[in-house]
Amino acid sequence: MSDRRTGILQAATRVIARRGVRGLRMGELAAEAGVSTALIYYHFTDRAGILRQTLEYIGDRADHYTAEDRPAPDRAPGQARDPRADLEQVLLLELQDTVEVRENSTAWGELRATAVFEPDLREELARSTHSWVHDVAELLARADPSGTAPAHAAAAERLTALVEGLSVRWLSGSLPIEHARRLLRGAVETELARG
Amino acid sequence: MSDRRTGILQAATRVIARRGVRGLRMGELAAEAGVSTALIYYHFTDRAGILRQTLEYIGDRADHYTAEDRPAPDRAPGQARDPRADLEQVLLLELQDTVEVRENSTAWGELRATAVFEPDLREELARSTHSWVHDVAELLARADPSGTAPAHAAAAERLTALVEGLSVRWLSGSLPIEHARRLLRGAVETELARG
Repeated sequence: MSDRRTGILQAATRVIARRGVRGLRMGELAAEAGVSTALIYYHFTDRAGILRQTLEYIGDRADHYTAEDRPAPDRAPGQARDPRADLEQVLLLELQDTVEVRENSTAWGELRATAVFEPDLREELARSTHSWVHDVAELLARADPSGTAPAHAAAAERLTALVEGLSVRWLSGSLPIEHARRLLRGAVETELARG
Repeated sequence: MSDRRTGILQAATRVIARRGVRGLRMGELAAEAGVSTALIYYHFTDRAGILRQTLEYIGDRADHYTAEDRPAPDRAPGQARDPRADLEQVLLLELQDTVEVRENSTAWGELRATAVFEPDLREELARSTHSWVHDVAELLARADPSGTAPAHAAAAERLTALVEGLSVRWLSGSLPIEHARRLLRGAVETELARG
């Protein structure tokens, strides 16, 4: 992706996280990204195009979060990873009070909420959701090799939907972040105990 | 509550479910409710007052859902209820494709999403959330009397946050309602198996 294009998507994420999708005006986005509105239309055609590409960008960006509160595992090269810890870690990355995660989660939740009213967004949202569920199901399969693929898929759907539910409770002031993290750890444990 | 006041809150729920909180204009609400804007201000003072009271109204209304797809249990008067079935039933009531539930869930999710950007709403939202979690924790305590109160509280927070997560996935077109219901049944089973 060109730097210019990425810069516009970063700016769109920031503006959505600050003012919501319905506060996203092309003029403000252009100012935030430091480009002309013409360039935005050139890259993304229209507002729906921006929103769809921002969804995809947010999903990709979440794949590269790093943990704030936990150092990289102290592991010799080649030493096996603990698949259970990996699973928990990947899910907990979504519940961190850092600027990046807060911004990403706010924008993701807002695009999710907007898709209830704007059917245009739904296809890209379903695709991003599916890809996230798929990744988590793979981690579950490694953490619990005796389980079946449908059981891993269902657990992955539950865990990721729970992350979304906890995340919006946190961002809307109904749940402190540390408590959200504890609840999520409990859910991982419960799902694995079932397996 | 006066009929006039209830009528305005019903109308606010419909308008929010149709166009979102940010689509809620006092003129449209007055037209929908068949009253004057002056009467709305008389009862609710301002827009924030309307939104807070609508949140409370939606929470109360959800307590009175009836199941669409399941007849009332065939139970002789005085016969014990099955607390496990009660718990499942109460949670599944939130995932039904009926006009009332769709409208309530859409408006609730939209008010939740709005509270991320409008701190005014947070206190009422936290209160409604807490009351819902409390009710579900009581059902869990009846279904699993050997568990501890903190364990029931945590499970209730997870199950209700999961309902919110599944609900917005359903309403935003990422998850068919029947599949959402299956996932929720699985979560109830998993939480009770843990107890």
